[in-house]
Amino acid sequence: MPLDNPFYSAEVQGPSELLRVGRFELEEGGVIPDLHLAVATFGELNEAKDNAILVPTWFSGTHATWWQVYIGEGRALDPSRWFIAVVNQIGNGMSTSPHTTDDTSIAMSRFPDVRIGDDVRAQEQLMREHFGIERFALVVGGSMGAQQTWEWAVRFPDKVLRAAPIAGTAQNTPHDFLFTRTLMDAITSDPGWNGGEYASHEEVAAGLARHADIWATMGLTTDFWKTEFWRGIPPIAEGLEFSTYEEFQQNFTRTLFGMMDPNALLSMGWKWQRGDVARNAGGDLAAALGRITAKTFVMPIEQDMFFPPRDCEPEAAMTPGAEVRMLHSIAGHFGLFGFEQSYLDEVDAHLRELLETEV
Amino acid sequence: MPLDNPFYSAEVQGPSELLRVGRFELEEGGVIPDLHLAVATFGELNEAKDNAILVPTWFSGTHATWWQVYIGEGRALDPSRWFIAVVNQIGNGMSTSPHTTDDTSIAMSRFPDVRIGDDVRAQEQLMREHFGIERFALVVGGSMGAQQTWEWAVRFPDKVLRAAPIAGTAQNTPHDFLFTRTLMDAITSDPGWNGGEYASHEEVAAGLARHADIWATMGLTTDFWKTEFWRGIPPIAEGLEFSTYEEFQQNFTRTLFGMMDPNALLSMGWKWQRGDVARNAGGDLAAALGRITAKTFVMPIEQDMFFPPRDCEPEAAMTPGAEVRMLHSIAGHFGLFGFEQSYLDEVDAHLRELLETEV
Repeated sequence: MPLDNPFYSAEVQGPSELLRVGRFELEEGGVIPDLHLAVATFGELNEAKDNAILVPTWFSGTHATWWQVYIGEGRALDPSRWFIAVVNQIGNGMSTSPHTTDDTSIAMSRFPDVRIGDDVRAQEQLMREHFGIERFALVVGGSMGAQQTWEWAVRFPDKVLRAAPIAGTAQNTPHDFLFTRTLMDAITSDPGWNGGEYASHEEVAAGLARHADIWATMGLTTDFWKTEFWRGIPPIAEGLEFSTYEEFQQNFTRTLFGMMDPNALLSMGWKWQRGDVARNAGGDLAAALGRITAKTFVMPIEQDMFFPPRDCEPEAAMTPGAEVRMLHSIAGHFGLFGFEQSYLDEVDAHLRELLETEV
Repeated sequence: MPLDNPFYSAEVQGPSELLRVGRFELEEGGVIPDLHLAVATFGELNEAKDNAILVPTWFSGTHATWWQVYIGEGRALDPSRWFIAVVNQIGNGMSTSPHTTDDTSIAMSRFPDVRIGDDVRAQEQLMREHFGIERFALVVGGSMGAQQTWEWAVRFPDKVLRAAPIAGTAQNTPHDFLFTRTLMDAITSDPGWNGGEYASHEEVAAGLARHADIWATMGLTTDFWKTEFWRGIPPIAEGLEFSTYEEFQQNFTRTLFGMMDPNALLSMGWKWQRGDVARNAGGDLAAALGRITAKTFVMPIEQDMFFPPRDCEPEAAMTPGAEVRMLHSIAGHFGLFGFEQSYLDEVDAHLRELLETEV
């Protein structure tokens, strides 16, 4: 029996369509017997099918942030010109996930390990079979969405004309692996998690709160907290206002992560830790990145502490023709949520230029 | 009954003397009925008593790192010229601490809250009463030792001729407060901690391992892990070698923190979170730092993620005559352990120049 978790409803996330991929064999050897991907589309696919943009999602995220913050008329991701498909990653709570499936062979603790490459293969198949799309004008994503963007560009060079990995790496670093482990241990150390067999995410409330607290350190920045930037962020709901940073942490960050499904976060965490395009070239990162033919803008966020520019820039240097376009946000990695107009203007300017580049 | 924990023995930490301060009233209202501070001294106090250097200790640390790494003939901290007193902070497992006291009114979970200002007052009293020292040529410390150094310079301007806070702030930031909370929650979420009433620190092994894992993220740097810098670090003991970063994390970082006393770490964590010299000036940081008459070198470590230069530099700007002397270590904050000769040379050059500055 799937668990009821209203966080993953259309009321909260906005509409999406659950599209069938079918039986799907995973790189680690597991199988998802009837994989579905939750897809939200914006705009119309033209007859030539050459105006498609693909957006894979990040850790803990869904398609929601994209329509709320990045997609709109007059924006770089303009649905009056482009057909934009935001595809929720496997296991994120929207696409087939540990708590959503009624297939007991993969439910909850039995959900198989999924890799970035699995997501990208499933997306490619769905886009081809369901929409008839053979080529994307742009693949763009942030964080784990950047991991998938890199993987797309390496794995399907003929299908990706342009790529914009934002705040994410092609090869996850050991530092990131360890950071992600602390995020996962915060959950699994909660006795309420019960080896993945909880009856409600609320039984894992303490673990999810610790998870949120760890995000508040490397996910944000000292300037975010010191300048009290959070005062300008609207509360999630009435009654969840905040006037101190500890209240913000409680009523915003902890409350937000507290709504999520623990096994979904763990499935994504495992995947994130192992993101590595070099797997496509026998472990040779330079060889893998050397296959990329997409025009690529690598877009780190300057104060990002766990996908820092110093990790992104060397990857750009190994990618033919790639350019680094630095983004700036006082929120560091969480700048991805688009708290600042200046950040959104930067993203739009770079994506607009990229989309106007002939390839 | 004090707990037996060999980590805090002279065999492991090197010799120190447990000196009596006596009944000590704390800023938060608690009392330590018979406070003792563990002091390790190097060199001879001259007759004029004007060659004294004070070194307060950092979180989880003791006097050990100072004699192992920073003090020596020909070094800036040269015991043939200076009388160097390294004073273990209250609650660190060497000075009076939750697990070392046989006074049941303050043992284990009943250990009272201690502030940075308490340590500095106790150190001042001990140095005056026991050694007859009224003035220090230099106060120098790293991390929480820097917090104490700042507090010394603000609280006793006439007694501190020179100050060198390394990789630490005068006023703890909210970002740091939250980071420290994750470190503390990693321990208290372990059922073995038992509200502070464990029978052995080994009952809290899982919590201490999570604590160590969180240190491995913001305490170190992505370059440390990516370049496999850890390969050059000697193992703690035979049988604890490492050939992968996960083995290093297990056999070095986790093993090291796993030897420590959980309540000691929590006592220091609470103190660290609330370090703030502005308390001496009604909350006005600029006014507090404006009182400093010591010649001050503010020494952040460039890649330090939780006491970053961007937090240290504004404090230097508020301190009369202070200069920023940037340090460089691939280990970030843990550069303090002195893994690199280049780092130690930088520290020595700056401290030597500072000690030669007429005041």
